[in-house]
Amino acid sequence: MKEKPFVFINVAASADGKISDESRKQVRISCKADMKRVDMLRATSDAVMVGIGTVLSDNPKLTVKAGDLIALRMKMGKSRQPLRVVVDSRCRIPLDAEVLSSEAETLIAVSQAADEEKVRLVAKKAEVVRLGKDKVDLLALMRHLRERGVEKLMVEGGATLNYAMLKEKLVDEVSIYYGSMIIGGNLSPTVVDGESFKIPLKLKLIEWKKLGEGLLARWKVIY
Amino acid sequence: MKEKPFVFINVAASADGKISDESRKQVRISCKADMKRVDMLRATSDAVMVGIGTVLSDNPKLTVKAGDLIALRMKMGKSRQPLRVVVDSRCRIPLDAEVLSSEAETLIAVSQAADEEKVRLVAKKAEVVRLGKDKVDLLALMRHLRERGVEKLMVEGGATLNYAMLKEKLVDEVSIYYGSMIIGGNLSPTVVDGESFKIPLKLKLIEWKKLGEGLLARWKVIY
Repeated sequence: MKEKPFVFINVAASADGKISDESRKQVRISCKADMKRVDMLRATSDAVMVGIGTVLSDNPKLTVKAGDLIALRMKMGKSRQPLRVVVDSRCRIPLDAEVLSSEAETLIAVSQAADEEKVRLVAKKAEVVRLGKDKVDLLALMRHLRERGVEKLMVEGGATLNYAMLKEKLVDEVSIYYGSMIIGGNLSPTVVDGESFKIPLKLKLIEWKKLGEGLLARWKVIY
Repeated sequence: MKEKPFVFINVAASADGKISDESRKQVRISCKADMKRVDMLRATSDAVMVGIGTVLSDNPKLTVKAGDLIALRMKMGKSRQPLRVVVDSRCRIPLDAEVLSSEAETLIAVSQAADEEKVRLVAKKAEVVRLGKDKVDLLALMRHLRERGVEKLMVEGGATLNYAMLKEKLVDEVSIYYGSMIIGGNLSPTVVDGESFKIPLKLKLIEWKKLGEGLLARWKVIY
C-alpha cells in the first residue's frame, strides 16, 4: 500500500502571485468558471485540507456545492462530501467555524501543544487527531489519511500550509489559477510563503489554458 | 502628441510570483527561449528602465545581446542600443555599475533629495535628470522620455518600481514569464510589491503560451 495519498494544491492567485491583500481578508480572485472547476476538484477528492489560518481568515465550508456532483459521488460509492481536514497545531479553531458544520465529516489535526480543554470541546463536533510535538507532523497526517482510505487529497491553502507541505515533499501537483488582476503588496500572502527554498523547487508544466478571464496552470512537482 | 510612451513591464517570476528569494540575490528564472524573447523585446524598445534596487542587487547591463537584433535596430534608423533609464531618487547608483557602461546611453532619473556631489560624479558617466521632490516624479519622467522620442518603454522591474508605475497608472501591459519553479518565502520580492491595491488592478489576458519550460502570459492593464 502507498504511504500517502496523491496530494495536489489548488490555489487561486492574482497574476502577481497573491492570494489575498495585506489585510488578509478574502479577495474574490476566481471567476465562475474557476469556481465550477474547484467544485469538481473537491467532488473527485476523498479529502479537502486547509490550514487554520485559512479557517480564521476566510471561514470556508469546504463542501461540494453542485447537487449533480454530490449525486455522482454517491453513485461512485463515495460519501456525500469529501472529508474536511484542518491542520491546526494549537487547536485554535472557533467552535462555530463553518468547517465544523454537519454537512460533512471533519478531521482536526492538532499537535501535543494543543490545549486539552479546547481539544475536548472541538472533539464534540469533529474528530481530532494529535500528531507531532509543537506542530502537526504532516507526513504522519498523510499516512493517517491514506490508512483511512484517502487516496486523493486536495490542499486549498493557505500560503503557510502550502509551504509546509511542499517543504516536506508531500505535494504531487500544484494547480494555480492566475486571476486577471494585480493585488500587489510586499505584505500580501502569496501562493507559497514560509521561508524561500535555498534551491527553488522544480516544477513541470503539464496543463495550461485560459479559463474565464484568467489563466490556469497545472504544475507537477519534481523532487 | 501623446503624453507618455507605450509602457510595458516585463518580468520573470516563479510560478508562485517571486522574482528572487529572500536573500534578494539573482535567481535564474528565465530559460534560454525566454532570454531570447527578452532580448527581442529590448531590441524593439526605445528605452529600457529599471529601479535602483535592481541595479544594486542584479547589476544588469540592460543591453541588446544578439548581433542580428542590433543590426536590425540600425537598419530601422534606431540607435545601436535602447536608452537605459534608472529610477534612482537618491542617486545611489555605484559609479562602476554595468548600466553605466559605454555600450549604450544611460539616463539616471533622480529627485531633489539626491546628493549634489554624487549627482556631479554620475553626470560624468550618464545624463542625469532631476524630477520630483523626495521621489522621482514618474509621470514627469514619462513625459520627459516621450519628448525625447521614446515611444516604447520596457520596464524590467524590480518589484518596487513595478508597483510605483502601476500605482501611477502609467503601465499599458504586463508580461509575466512564470518559470517552472517555486521559490516561496513571505520575504521574497514578488512581481509587484509596495502596498496592496485596495481594489485590485484589473487585467485582461491577451496572450498565453508555453515557452521553454515555463508559461508566458501577457496582460493588458485596465484602469
